[in-house]
Amino acid sequence: MQKETNIHDPNNHLSAYIEIDLSALSNNYKKISKFVSPSVCAATIKANAYGLGIDEIAKTLVKSGCREFFVSDIYEGIKLRKTLKKNQFEIYALNGLKYTKDQDYAKYNIIPVLGSLNEFYYYKQSSMYDNTLPVAIHIDTGFSRLGFDIEDVISICKENLNVKLLMSHLANADDTNSKLPELQLEKFLQISNNFMGVRKSIANSHAIHRGQSYHLDLVRPGISLYGCSNDNQTQIKYEQVVKMFAPILQIKEVKKGSSIGYGAAFVATKDTTIAILEIGYADGIPRSLSSTNQHEGGSFYINNNAVPIIGRVSMDLVAVNITECKTNTNVGDYVEIFGTNQNIDTLAKNADTISYELLTRLNHRVQKFYKYA
Amino acid sequence: MQKETNIHDPNNHLSAYIEIDLSALSNNYKKISKFVSPSVCAATIKANAYGLGIDEIAKTLVKSGCREFFVSDIYEGIKLRKTLKKNQFEIYALNGLKYTKDQDYAKYNIIPVLGSLNEFYYYKQSSMYDNTLPVAIHIDTGFSRLGFDIEDVISICKENLNVKLLMSHLANADDTNSKLPELQLEKFLQISNNFMGVRKSIANSHAIHRGQSYHLDLVRPGISLYGCSNDNQTQIKYEQVVKMFAPILQIKEVKKGSSIGYGAAFVATKDTTIAILEIGYADGIPRSLSSTNQHEGGSFYINNNAVPIIGRVSMDLVAVNITECKTNTNVGDYVEIFGTNQNIDTLAKNADTISYELLTRLNHRVQKFYKYA
Repeated sequence: MQKETNIHDPNNHLSAYIEIDLSALSNNYKKISKFVSPSVCAATIKANAYGLGIDEIAKTLVKSGCREFFVSDIYEGIKLRKTLKKNQFEIYALNGLKYTKDQDYAKYNIIPVLGSLNEFYYYKQSSMYDNTLPVAIHIDTGFSRLGFDIEDVISICKENLNVKLLMSHLANADDTNSKLPELQLEKFLQISNNFMGVRKSIANSHAIHRGQSYHLDLVRPGISLYGCSNDNQTQIKYEQVVKMFAPILQIKEVKKGSSIGYGAAFVATKDTTIAILEIGYADGIPRSLSSTNQHEGGSFYINNNAVPIIGRVSMDLVAVNITECKTNTNVGDYVEIFGTNQNIDTLAKNADTISYELLTRLNHRVQKFYKYA
Repeated sequence: MQKETNIHDPNNHLSAYIEIDLSALSNNYKKISKFVSPSVCAATIKANAYGLGIDEIAKTLVKSGCREFFVSDIYEGIKLRKTLKKNQFEIYALNGLKYTKDQDYAKYNIIPVLGSLNEFYYYKQSSMYDNTLPVAIHIDTGFSRLGFDIEDVISICKENLNVKLLMSHLANADDTNSKLPELQLEKFLQISNNFMGVRKSIANSHAIHRGQSYHLDLVRPGISLYGCSNDNQTQIKYEQVVKMFAPILQIKEVKKGSSIGYGAAFVATKDTTIAILEIGYADGIPRSLSSTNQHEGGSFYINNNAVPIIGRVSMDLVAVNITECKTNTNVGDYVEIFGTNQNIDTLAKNADTISYELLTRLNHRVQKFYKYA
């Protein structure tokens, strides 16, 4: 549910919402762009721009100077092309060439990222080849996901192709103790000698900070743009883009010994004041944030006070313990799910996952408000 | 993405999809309805009908005889009213009376489920009270979530209200060893003596099978309608409603010692054939299904063979081990995520959660196909 208005008004719509700071997004893009210059900074906006809404995110990035975009597949690409319109913006479909949609790559000017001989042969016998539709080539240098095996890509390097980009993807760019990224980079550079004059790209958000040798011709950050998963040690100070809030529906006193929530998994060990928030796993709050008496789950924030989740996260509702801050807390108040007091990475860690998963599972029931500072 | 067509055609759209069997849904409704008769069987279709698409689900239930529906809030209620149109179908908004939307309850004929004195006082001073807009009353009998405290509800029982339904919700209806459901029922019946002639409801899906004493005037199943979370011991044989499939994008040979996926969290202990599936956590497949060498994650199915997930589930992709069944497996084939070989409850258990969470986090990127048998 994407609203035209850009300010949340609880008098108009009382429900959970996220606030997306497009100025922060723009600043993050510009900071990376400057940092990697003269390398080009593209943007990874697959999965509906990590759940934040591809239209608004893409428009802001274009205004910030971005010209190249990575999406997951042709369907996301078509949606993005309808937003971007102009063909001067490049759109790459990372999941490869889908056999069912060959006419659409040309029609919407989407660059398929070829990743296997299968796809290459299919491309070659199609009208896309006759019309020299540009392609990108993805080489698997040790990630074992999409991408050509090394022998296979060498077998096609003499083909007459319009290759816009040669790319590879790192398995663990964020692991500063691992030698694997260096090995992947080395392999990639070695193979790219077979594709003289073609632009090269290997860096995702984390690889950008492994050193300039990873920047090559083009970097393609995703999560950093959205202000998440940042190591504070990095040279770029990323700005927070996303905050989430949910309203209090009820406040109640629970007597010592009462059970709270599903499975009676939490029993109050003393008289407790709880607030019932209108947010649950159907909105994207992981059930793994639940608390039992034996295991502490996640927390949210009310007026800078941490309020622990008590009992199980249910489909539409969560109970939090507000005993310590009940004086200034009222029905209708909004609780910070993540934001100023707790970033999404902290919440994700308490849910035993990563911010990427939290962002992409935000449900359409959650309203999105875009802030232009 | 909800399609007009009701048959999945991979030549038209190659991507993950779910298949929803509306005949099975209808049969499940009719079976429950017959089982609880003369109690009335309503349907809980909140959170977009547990992620399955409220429009199609509601229309099918209406055809099957359902006349009363529970949604989470006024916004879901408005959407549902636009689908159902006729006022003969009752819509209850479980999350209570939202202070911001009082004119809409009457306009769209939505029954707010009042759950606190706050809401009651708000109702009483509004035009809703003057126009005797019907309400339901939710009593908290030991769940400690939404609902009136017992003393509070007794204080309003003499008020002049148009109460359509008195309800309560059980904390652990599925726990056959717990005495809590009996205690909740007892409390509920005791208090309802103060509301003579008002219809009563306490049973969700699991409570229906605790015995006839729970059926009262109206039962309101949710998950059972969708064929999930069933105990095989129950007297009703529920039919499977939802199946999920994802296409194979690439098949590759991985040498012993190679790492697979993010974090290099899985290393092949022998030469292995893997398939890369186009589905990931952005589609709703929990990252908690990931495998490491130390910890086995979830499995999917190809031609009735279990294919274990290897490495981490990523945003758009998952790798599975197809070494044992590679002979008949090809790029473009569809893999069963859950369905005939493995129901959604088994997959949920492997992800350390419940089918409810899996269903409601299915992303809009996943196509929905509705099957009318």
